[in-house]
Amino acid sequence: MLEELKEEVCAANLLLQQAGLVVLTWGNASGIDRERGLVVIKPSGVSYEEMSAEQMVVVDLEGNVVEGDLRPSSDTPSHLVLYRELEDIGGIAHTHSTYATAWAQACRSIPCYGTTHADHFRGAVPVTRPLELEAVRGSYEQETGWAIVRAVANKSLKEFPGILVAQHGPFTWGESVSEAVHNSIIVEQIARIAAVTEGLAPTVGPINDELRDKHFLRKHGPEAYYGQAGGQRH
Amino acid sequence: MLEELKEEVCAANLLLQQAGLVVLTWGNASGIDRERGLVVIKPSGVSYEEMSAEQMVVVDLEGNVVEGDLRPSSDTPSHLVLYRELEDIGGIAHTHSTYATAWAQACRSIPCYGTTHADHFRGAVPVTRPLELEAVRGSYEQETGWAIVRAVANKSLKEFPGILVAQHGPFTWGESVSEAVHNSIIVEQIARIAAVTEGLAPTVGPINDELRDKHFLRKHGPEAYYGQAGGQRH
Amino acid sequence: MLEELKEEVCAANLLLQQAGLVVLTWGNASGIDRERGLVVIKPSGVSYEEMSAEQMVVVDLEGNVVEGDLRPSSDTPSHLVLYRELEDIGGIAHTHSTYATAWAQACRSIPCYGTTHADHFRGAVPVTRPLELEAVRGSYEQETGWAIVRAVANKSLKEFPGILVAQHGPFTWGESVSEAVHNSIIVEQIARIAAVTEGLAPTVGPINDELRDKHFLRKHGPEAYYGQAGGQRH
Amino acid sequence: MLEELKEEVCAANLLLQQAGLVVLTWGNASGIDRERGLVVIKPSGVSYEEMSAEQMVVVDLEGNVVEGDLRPSSDTPSHLVLYRELEDIGGIAHTHSTYATAWAQACRSIPCYGTTHADHFRGAVPVTRPLELEAVRGSYEQETGWAIVRAVANKSLKEFPGILVAQHGPFTWGESVSEAVHNSIIVEQIARIAAVTEGLAPTVGPINDELRDKHFLRKHGPEAYYGQAGGQRH
Repeated sequence: MLEELKEEVCAANLLLQQAGLVVLTWGNASGIDRERGLVVIKPSGVSYEEMSAEQMVVVDLEGNVVEGDLRPSSDTPSHLVLYRELEDIGGIAHTHSTYATAWAQACRSIPCYGTTHADHFRGAVPVTRPLELEAVRGSYEQETGWAIVRAVANKSLKEFPGILVAQHGPFTWGESVSEAVHNSIIVEQIARIAAVTEGLAPTVGPINDELRDKHFLRKHGPEAYYGQAGGQRH
Repeated sequence: MLEELKEEVCAANLLLQQAGLVVLTWGNASGIDRERGLVVIKPSGVSYEEMSAEQMVVVDLEGNVVEGDLRPSSDTPSHLVLYRELEDIGGIAHTHSTYATAWAQACRSIPCYGTTHADHFRGAVPVTRPLELEAVRGSYEQETGWAIVRAVANKSLKEFPGILVAQHGPFTWGESVSEAVHNSIIVEQIARIAAVTEGLAPTVGPINDELRDKHFLRKHGPEAYYGQAGGQRH
Repeated sequence: MLEELKEEVCAANLLLQQAGLVVLTWGNASGIDRERGLVVIKPSGVSYEEMSAEQMVVVDLEGNVVEGDLRPSSDTPSHLVLYRELEDIGGIAHTHSTYATAWAQACRSIPCYGTTHADHFRGAVPVTRPLELEAVRGSYEQETGWAIVRAVANKSLKEFPGILVAQHGPFTWGESVSEAVHNSIIVEQIARIAAVTEGLAPTVGPINDELRDKHFLRKHGPEAYYGQAGGQRH
Repeated sequence: MLEELKEEVCAANLLLQQAGLVVLTWGNASGIDRERGLVVIKPSGVSYEEMSAEQMVVVDLEGNVVEGDLRPSSDTPSHLVLYRELEDIGGIAHTHSTYATAWAQACRSIPCYGTTHADHFRGAVPVTRPLELEAVRGSYEQETGWAIVRAVANKSLKEFPGILVAQHGPFTWGESVSEAVHNSIIVEQIARIAAVTEGLAPTVGPINDELRDKHFLRKHGPEAYYGQAGGQRH
């Protein structure tokens, strides 16, 4: 079942690695079939060299395995909270990429220091609050999902296609799993350039709202003129 | 039409990516046929994996598409201002490469800290002023071009083959699109070494003018003795 | 003799290089056959391009060469101390990878700044004390091994699968040589993210013990649910 | 003539690029036939993609081209001063590799912060004084060579197989051009680890002389036991 989505999810996971965002097996991407309410996700701890579409695991929105011989990613409950609460998203990616993880460990949002950032996020890349002790002791992976949901409660998911989980690392999303992975690549590069920027100019501030919106909207607004009409915009 | 220039522009865009200066589709290079007054430029938002010479878009100096099925790069108006105002240049490249973009986001010119820099720029790599709000609200991409033109008004384009647009990223140029792309590679490497230099010696100053000119002129002056006579000098 | 172990040790050494942890010939990995009390280790100063399983050297626990035409790694005595004193380990790897070596040169343990770290170490990556002058003048490589043994005396080797030797570099271990090499990859990535984290937030502290243990135990505890049951967990 | 040396010099130059030390054409390596008093060096400004052994240029110790259709590297006079004054060396390499160049631009020698460094240099990697204005205005490339000669006047060339030219970049040497290039790789990696070390521990000092000598001598001393007897030691 869901063969096409499995292929897409497998390819997206492999792209995470090809893009240099993943060390060993650290990372996972998933996609959802909204009509059927089923999620396809990477199995836990499987090496990228051996990964195939057939290995992808199908779970329902409560986390029951519907198809697949392998255990799904241990982060599956985080993904499921996001799919249940954020109805517009079709795919999710999670990595421990170097620079985005460093910002997450620093418990800092990434300020919008330039147009490269503004092309993709309409403001700082947000960071969640660190989890409370009870949340860590409880349903930890679900609580991670809830921390994300709270942090984007008043935001457009298109304007903020990802977030940093404090002390952990980045989660990104999109209309598809492929778009979610592209957004992981984007967050890592934004994070890297911002870190170097602060080294060169410790007191620099974010760009003004007009420049930020000009760039974001020319790419993602109703009158966007970046990319090919109807085509992919990455 | 302009098949040779299309091949050259396509190859130059691909080189940007092979050199590691481009993430996803962030970057563009163009070349001009001065006799016909036509510019060949990369289409907007097309992935490098699929890029071919036939996809390159031909525009006139006012930005009208003369040939091509795809929309030209959204930065085309910036390129066209440069081609109209800087008559000696034959090619332009624009990237969001990590270190050059970080200097641009820091709104800092790159000081000439060593001979690697002086081999290619006869002084600091300049940075534009940040755009005024009216410029952002107006014909933004053209204004970006004008900010560059103002910043190089009193400079030799051979002595300063590129610039940082504040809060944005590097633009470089050359006699050909190939040379422009080489200058993008050079600016990124200069930017990277300079960032590390400041980490090691926060109070270091630029090299003296004699050493700077010795290196620049042995490579680019009337009595240059670097490279092969009549050959390419990169 | 020990053909299978030789293949495994050779492959593990090659993986060190493929993972970018090794420059020239700087690094070595070994594995032990506990029943026979024999260790297989990389020969000293042999280039990775030419490395083959047959070249691997077999030594006993006192360092006598049992089989092999080449001289074993000059760090062999350090490995042997660890195999004699730490009876649970089956493999060892030693590198001069950039970031882990920098922390070792800084004589600092790596604080547990996030879940990426806690997934693999149940606390800071420890660092030995610098060797005393007498130790340097004496049986230096053995003393290096002893410094490691002292530093992990009260620790679980599964909770701390590696260490930094002060002023030198990382040593890691595992049930097999393959696991030891995976732990070298992990230590380098942890070291790198932690260095960037401190640049972004100089006063950040380690994560709390609950979050640290949650991550460590979900992957390595008795009720671990990361990875596939019975499968490898990297 | 000198076909074998040409092959060796060509291969060494290509290795500089494969090792990531060279951007575009920035770098050169040469080797000398001491019996004939002839030096083989890379031609100036030739791209690595097209480089072949036949292109290598043969010059005598006064710089006259003895064989070759191309102009020799513009740094040839620096190489020749070194060959004339430092009679033990058989090969030289010069790069603008990122971290070594940054230390050179910082006008700082690289302190010996750990055993990785001590394995190859018996103390800090030295740096020349910046050239005086008269030296820049005079026979500049020769003066660069003289600055190196002065800086290593009281040092063993085996204990210090390279140097940083202030405001410029690293030069390294060895018994052969291959060894010189290996030393360029070593200097870059030492420079990189040292830069990260200072970021983690700004007040760290060099290791003590006993540890430094222990490492240097076990690899390069009369009773060296690293590597295979009679074999290469890299």
